[in-house]
Amino acid sequence: MSVDEFDLIRRFFRRSAVRSQTRLGVGDDAALLNPPPGQVLAATVDTMVAGVHFFPDADPAALGHKLLAVNLSDLAAMGAEPAWALLALTLPDAAPEWLGAFAEGLFALAERHRVDLVGGDTTRGPLTLSLQALGWVPEEQALRRCGARPGDGIYVSGTLGDAALGLKMLRGELDWRDEAVIERLLRPRPRVVLGLSLRGLAHACIDVSDGLVADLGHILSASGVGAILEWESLPLSAAVRRYVADTGDWRLPLSGGDDYELCFTLPEAAVRVLQQRLPAGAVAWHRIGTIQKEQGLRINKGGRAISLPPAGYRHFHHDE
Amino acid sequence: MSVDEFDLIRRFFRRSAVRSQTRLGVGDDAALLNPPPGQVLAATVDTMVAGVHFFPDADPAALGHKLLAVNLSDLAAMGAEPAWALLALTLPDAAPEWLGAFAEGLFALAERHRVDLVGGDTTRGPLTLSLQALGWVPEEQALRRCGARPGDGIYVSGTLGDAALGLKMLRGELDWRDEAVIERLLRPRPRVVLGLSLRGLAHACIDVSDGLVADLGHILSASGVGAILEWESLPLSAAVRRYVADTGDWRLPLSGGDDYELCFTLPEAAVRVLQQRLPAGAVAWHRIGTIQKEQGLRINKGGRAISLPPAGYRHFHHDE
Repeated sequence: MSVDEFDLIRRFFRRSAVRSQTRLGVGDDAALLNPPPGQVLAATVDTMVAGVHFFPDADPAALGHKLLAVNLSDLAAMGAEPAWALLALTLPDAAPEWLGAFAEGLFALAERHRVDLVGGDTTRGPLTLSLQALGWVPEEQALRRCGARPGDGIYVSGTLGDAALGLKMLRGELDWRDEAVIERLLRPRPRVVLGLSLRGLAHACIDVSDGLVADLGHILSASGVGAILEWESLPLSAAVRRYVADTGDWRLPLSGGDDYELCFTLPEAAVRVLQQRLPAGAVAWHRIGTIQKEQGLRINKGGRAISLPPAGYRHFHHDE
Repeated sequence: MSVDEFDLIRRFFRRSAVRSQTRLGVGDDAALLNPPPGQVLAATVDTMVAGVHFFPDADPAALGHKLLAVNLSDLAAMGAEPAWALLALTLPDAAPEWLGAFAEGLFALAERHRVDLVGGDTTRGPLTLSLQALGWVPEEQALRRCGARPGDGIYVSGTLGDAALGLKMLRGELDWRDEAVIERLLRPRPRVVLGLSLRGLAHACIDVSDGLVADLGHILSASGVGAILEWESLPLSAAVRRYVADTGDWRLPLSGGDDYELCFTLPEAAVRVLQQRLPAGAVAWHRIGTIQKEQGLRINKGGRAISLPPAGYRHFHHDE
């Protein structure tokens, strides 16, 4: 590799800041950032590894999008407004086409949410993408996992299971394909507007990255409560309905990861407020169950209550 | 890998927060942090890759120390007080001994500087360690690279070239060894107290990670100035003096990376203030040259001014 290529990398990732709160971006020993007074900073980090989280030949523009999206999803699940990202990029080489496409995908989403990329480190090694996102939220309005109360409705945005179904399609496990479903896997949409609208309203919130059962399970254990879900109420796309009807595998929308929808609990009185707050065209959200005093997670399916043991995506016991 | 091992990893990295500004640490979708009012946040990220930045069989405790140290060094170079870290750990497996030692090394340094580890992501893949550090500094006192002025003295802390010499020893390129020198490579000490003492005093500051010529070169180009160094003034350890005498390779302390000392420029009037500010036992610092109007970097050696073209460690044209 040459110095020219090194400078090329830097050029791809250095853009003008869009936020006045960005006092100093890329180019010194650290970025200098000025969150507005009266807010707490929300900070998260997520890593994607070639061969584990994505196919090594994956579209770099989609990777750039997804790396930022999964972190914005974490901020959304806290009710935080996203503001900044730092990128730790480990690359086997500095192929300009790959880098250009990756940066395009990342910045297209960053611009949509007014996120400034303010720092990073590029190193040589096996393809590993790590991004850390920063945002802010008034402390008393932050969405935690621990506040769910018996009687709360359980809600989820969008539809469930599409990303897991898309992965089956990409792996050639099905004899049909649906590009829109695959797109759900490759380019998840972080539910930033919904997260902001839930501030001070939702008793608990999490993003569905490891599957509904696993992630709702985190809310239940952090809150010391249980829950019952209604199978008939789960929001499913036509493709997931078809898959379930074809195969009988009704657990896919419950355990499939990578959807990046928000799962949250609301007291009855908050439902109308949320309806009024959400702008037209925002993502749909549906009630799928109820928080209960009795521990454990159950689902009502065809008149029977089936117990759902906590499980889901675990990075270290996962065969992908 | 089993779920038990996954939980083990989480246990290693979950400790009680020491800072009241840490409102919520590990265990939700994002950490919630409350920097003091009147400060700007300083944010930086650095990655270490097995086989590139360290030997794959390196002592994990030293790796944990160094990963945090190199980031605290970046904060010190901004004059920022370190407060928080987020860790992105990619591991081929979850060996408890390795993880326990890594965590010990990291937390020993974190406790010394009152840094809370507030988030992270552990994934499976080729050994890659990435850490992002956050701290704060009053905006008008932050240390930038761009303020050096002709007539400023150029100063450096500690000694130069030890880490590069330690690497030669570890590689078996020399017929002698000095454990203290190797320790400089493996366990660099971030100059946090010095960085805080330089607030509002230094015209420019950077940490020496890529070698003095490369890093001072960043100050010169950001400030639009040049400099002359004095060979006789360079602070060298006895081991580096011996190496230079033995080999004639006098460029090692100028180009060797990984020292993590601070290089800074001061106007004459600031020297006494810094002497008074620095607590007893703080790292030594020495004047090594002068900022000049004339562009470029030169060194006075044996009565001759030798030009030093900018060069140093570049991740993508580096054979290590």
